[in-house]
Amino acid sequence: MVSDLGFQFFHPIEVRYRDVDAQRHVNSATYFTYMEQARAKYLQALGLWSGEDFEAIGIILAEQSCTYRKAFRYGQVVEVGVRVSRLGHKSFEVSYSLREQASGEEYARGRTVLVAYDYRRGQSVPIPEAWRQILARHEGLVPGDPANRKEADDDED
Amino acid sequence: MVSDLGFQFFHPIEVRYRDVDAQRHVNSATYFTYMEQARAKYLQALGLWSGEDFEAIGIILAEQSCTYRKAFRYGQVVEVGVRVSRLGHKSFEVSYSLREQASGEEYARGRTVLVAYDYRRGQSVPIPEAWRQILARHEGLVPGDPANRKEADDDED
Amino acid sequence: MVSDLGFQFFHPIEVRYRDVDAQRHVNSATYFTYMEQARAKYLQALGLWSGEDFEAIGIILAEQSCTYRKAFRYGQVVEVGVRVSRLGHKSFEVSYSLREQASGEEYARGRTVLVAYDYRRGQSVPIPEAWRQILARHEGLVPGDPANRKEADDDED
Amino acid sequence: MVSDLGFQFFHPIEVRYRDVDAQRHVNSATYFTYMEQARAKYLQALGLWSGEDFEAIGIILAEQSCTYRKAFRYGQVVEVGVRVSRLGHKSFEVSYSLREQASGEEYARGRTVLVAYDYRRGQSVPIPEAWRQILARHEGLVPGDPANRKEADDDED
Repeated sequence: MVSDLGFQFFHPIEVRYRDVDAQRHVNSATYFTYMEQARAKYLQALGLWSGEDFEAIGIILAEQSCTYRKAFRYGQVVEVGVRVSRLGHKSFEVSYSLREQASGEEYARGRTVLVAYDYRRGQSVPIPEAWRQILARHEGLVPGDPANRKEADDDED
Repeated sequence: MVSDLGFQFFHPIEVRYRDVDAQRHVNSATYFTYMEQARAKYLQALGLWSGEDFEAIGIILAEQSCTYRKAFRYGQVVEVGVRVSRLGHKSFEVSYSLREQASGEEYARGRTVLVAYDYRRGQSVPIPEAWRQILARHEGLVPGDPANRKEADDDED
Repeated sequence: MVSDLGFQFFHPIEVRYRDVDAQRHVNSATYFTYMEQARAKYLQALGLWSGEDFEAIGIILAEQSCTYRKAFRYGQVVEVGVRVSRLGHKSFEVSYSLREQASGEEYARGRTVLVAYDYRRGQSVPIPEAWRQILARHEGLVPGDPANRKEADDDED
Repeated sequence: MVSDLGFQFFHPIEVRYRDVDAQRHVNSATYFTYMEQARAKYLQALGLWSGEDFEAIGIILAEQSCTYRKAFRYGQVVEVGVRVSRLGHKSFEVSYSLREQASGEEYARGRTVLVAYDYRRGQSVPIPEAWRQILARHEGLVPGDPANRKEADDDED
């Protein structure tokens, strides 16, 4: 079961004073910045992005969400778990677990849907085969297997 | 039908150079900053927040999401439509339409679930009656009416 | 006298809820974001930047500073005055006055030193003659005239 | 000589994808966010701030500046050196060295002038004696000694 899969990749992020807003906890939009940072590091760790060529990232963000359980505060380190939780034809879903490092407690969960995109042609394209194999191998997913899908696939597979 | 209701409140936000990231369009997390700003202005317009006392805002963000259709760019003005699309017992949902001002085209849609919260007691509370009446009147919602709900209500109403 | 010159260009910026930090006034780094936004609009107004090609801006920031008198707060609009206060051979200085729009009161002053730069060759270059003429004409400066200089010129003019 | 004093406190900050702007290097305002974060950690390390009570920080920022030599990029870690470089009667100056961690190369230098402030009375006050002693001891400064001053003291000492 995909939903039972643990996170194999984690990236620690120190809460910055600037991340905190007038409510004196980390601003809700900043959780998406944490996910973005951890996702970039995940793609680099898997060899899918060099970290240098910003045109080369042929994926666009179609949708994202976050569920907040507890508010991060200045002084904490956020440990962000990242994994690909669904691998479709043209899109894939990344799931996140945002934990307070010292206690290991999960404060928030997130999800992004990413679509493979050809910037030159200006249209979505099938996920490159090399990406599919690396992601599937890393996450123990079987591409095309309905068991990979936690929810209805909006791809035209 | 709630889903047919138009937006009656709009707030314009100029895209800042700083909102743009290395991909050269507005960063995906920044859409939530736009929603936050427009929501604050909406609450002020309805007389629910003074804009000054940050402790007084007895609502916490439980969940939020955004669906991206097109990317905002530097030079544009974002017109953010805001409305309360569900009014539960302890929580309410705010929906957003992010449009490019010059063309009127919708680039993104968002949604936040907010929970009434008593900071002193550290627990969720029923939405204050005054808030319910103002929100319901403004949006033409009938509190407690299932027609207000676009989706299953997670409240223990 | 340059120091007596008024500002002829102003750009209004609405304080965002997100600009405010845990001290409940606008974060000190954000004043530089306001200056950056107003500077970009100034360059566009003078026809020096299209607002679209980010490679084309052949200037790099060498130095900047801000003096804080009063703290901006959520709910205010910042009116940012921008002018070129010194026009050197390879660099020019931009000065800013950050005012609270409703009262007209100056809350902060800023300054940036910008250097003309050739990104392909990776080195500073003389300010293009077209830029010099437009800036000088707009600000009533006489290029090369020591009266333009409020302080010692660090250029190798 | 104060100017010869080395930095005894360093704080590492990972460049975030979000710190990078359309020019594809770290945004110039973000350098002040790095300094702010390192300064907060410095004050905590010296026992001058708990990291929790945001009202307790009785200092306000009067002035700050940054000199840019080289641009930080995504993928780098910024090592921020922090020290108090001047200790006046009501104000003190903090200096920063922003270095790229891997090479040790200094990319930027910064400076902030902080003023002791009584928020209840709304006015500047002498730096508390306990602060002076801790800062002077840590930095090897002799309070009141002109040798502490790199430049004219704007305090009414």
